[in-house]
Amino acid sequence: MPSLLLDKTICIRNIERMASKALQHHLRLRPHFKTHQSARIGSWFREFGVTGITVSSLQMAEYFALSGWEDILVAFPFNSGEINTLNRLLDHSNISILIDSREALSHLHRIKKEIAYYIDIDTGYGRTGIRSGAEESIETLIQAASDTGKLRFAGFYCHAGHSYRAASQEEMEKIHNKAVDDLYKLKVTFREFAPGVLYGDTPNCSTQNNFRGVDEITPGNFVFYDLSQVLIGSCSLEDIAVAIACPVAGRYPQEGRILIHGGAVHFSKEMMEIGGTPVYGRLVQSSGKGWAIDNREHYITSLSQEHGILTGGGELMDMFRIGDLAYFLPVHSCLTANLMREYVTLDGLRISTLNS
Amino acid sequence: MPSLLLDKTICIRNIERMASKALQHHLRLRPHFKTHQSARIGSWFREFGVTGITVSSLQMAEYFALSGWEDILVAFPFNSGEINTLNRLLDHSNISILIDSREALSHLHRIKKEIAYYIDIDTGYGRTGIRSGAEESIETLIQAASDTGKLRFAGFYCHAGHSYRAASQEEMEKIHNKAVDDLYKLKVTFREFAPGVLYGDTPNCSTQNNFRGVDEITPGNFVFYDLSQVLIGSCSLEDIAVAIACPVAGRYPQEGRILIHGGAVHFSKEMMEIGGTPVYGRLVQSSGKGWAIDNREHYITSLSQEHGILTGGGELMDMFRIGDLAYFLPVHSCLTANLMREYVTLDGLRISTLNS
Repeated sequence: MPSLLLDKTICIRNIERMASKALQHHLRLRPHFKTHQSARIGSWFREFGVTGITVSSLQMAEYFALSGWEDILVAFPFNSGEINTLNRLLDHSNISILIDSREALSHLHRIKKEIAYYIDIDTGYGRTGIRSGAEESIETLIQAASDTGKLRFAGFYCHAGHSYRAASQEEMEKIHNKAVDDLYKLKVTFREFAPGVLYGDTPNCSTQNNFRGVDEITPGNFVFYDLSQVLIGSCSLEDIAVAIACPVAGRYPQEGRILIHGGAVHFSKEMMEIGGTPVYGRLVQSSGKGWAIDNREHYITSLSQEHGILTGGGELMDMFRIGDLAYFLPVHSCLTANLMREYVTLDGLRISTLNS
Repeated sequence: MPSLLLDKTICIRNIERMASKALQHHLRLRPHFKTHQSARIGSWFREFGVTGITVSSLQMAEYFALSGWEDILVAFPFNSGEINTLNRLLDHSNISILIDSREALSHLHRIKKEIAYYIDIDTGYGRTGIRSGAEESIETLIQAASDTGKLRFAGFYCHAGHSYRAASQEEMEKIHNKAVDDLYKLKVTFREFAPGVLYGDTPNCSTQNNFRGVDEITPGNFVFYDLSQVLIGSCSLEDIAVAIACPVAGRYPQEGRILIHGGAVHFSKEMMEIGGTPVYGRLVQSSGKGWAIDNREHYITSLSQEHGILTGGGELMDMFRIGDLAYFLPVHSCLTANLMREYVTLDGLRISTLNS
């Protein structure tokens, strides 16, 4: 069976680095916990002063509320179908929600007590949110939300996820600066409400330094990083804190191919292209209790449900025998962790998650 | 929260159709249970005379053994790291395994009692198996396996998965006929062992009629089917037995865009292209307790971890309000079911899986 190894030393170093950066820029770190989905890993953030977190569903909010988190932002546009779940959660925790339209307010007078909400702002990503220039819509929304008698305007939230698609460092900087500037303008325009500004995905928080007007940053992936983040420039291969250990189940010397037990139900189908070839994971070498990165680049180039194919010719054939374990860095650690549902630290400690 | 709806009527009809086809061609149906991964859904096959099943891991074999299945083929090349798990299973069940090289035999003398094995044959897919023409290697393998004192040669297994990549019905027929012919030749060459021939993925079993020499068919996906199978020509949209119900969480009339709570952790990132656009699911209409297919084609065109974006302009805007449920047919039902980990029938019955 494949297992998901977690190097706690690297993980803590990633948390520490982001916490230091937040401190340096006078930002509150409100990490997104959708990446690890684990109460124990979440607890590691506490010694860096983290008291508020971000999650992507009410189910995740409930899980972390049960493990003692009291300040939880559900960073997914709220819909009225979830009012009963929200009301149950409000008995134990301080939940804040995301709103991006007046339509979303219908039925929200049924929330059992007043809660904070953030307005989701779109600075160009095009996924959710009110466009940053639509100040009139924002003003109308603040008024309508206030009329529900249950919603207290706390500020603006923005996920500038188009940073993930930036073709260059210059483009990423441009995306970032536009987002920060747009949010700053909104902060000034709506200053009578003293709005907080919550912003920042892993690429921007890892690489950028202009946080004018931002109050809290909400990156998630940095806790583990992954191959996609290396490609973007957020981190180095040595910063990736998770690797999947997969049994070698077949060797095909004629084709220069290795079969691993490790497929789409372990890695996810998240793919990146390297030299025009689809890649689902990068081979690393086993080293002591963990893994080590060397210059030999071998990739998983094909994945089906349980099968992974590693291509690389004769060199690969010499590395493995059937029954050995092969270690891989994932393309997208959030989706891999969601599928694996359990971590094993290099000391052999098993760490459960929301889905364990 | 998204939920995975299962239309039991369609599902039973799919099972019945495949069981009838097997009967008509004098084939034993040994369905692959990796698609549904559910003891209860597995039990629905029993009334169609199914007594043997296929799975893709020892973990899955263990789950189905516990629910009473006694004849289980683990259709994934066996590796020696799994001997202890296998030995535990052999107390309760009749497990057969897949072998595709002499190297895989090392340590297999430690298996606690004699078991049947099949030789995995590659007729052109290029994922696992011994090439169908390599009769000498096959002969050597049979001898070496016999020498372990624990392995009884039961026949040949082949998954001609390149049928999934066939560009036309003609190409699929060619792939299928080559596989059947190659296996037939092997059956004749090795007739002294009276080898069984196990063959047949969902596309080939759904569309082809030449099964000369085949003893058992092992399709899996047909229990639910999905959009990929419609594209291949294995089934119609009306044969798809599962749909994901996702709350509508955002409406963006200016962009003609709907946000659903339903992302890569629900659908998987399995993608197909329609008219050059990536597609992750097709919208269907809610109808009575289930769903209905109409001619309006609207697709999920973008997925992140929890977000799905449905694009389609004004028509879409009129269909939904925030808080409504939207229903989607999945691109790849196996991966979707693996992620959702629970089904809800149209009568509201919850059905658990291996991962529930």
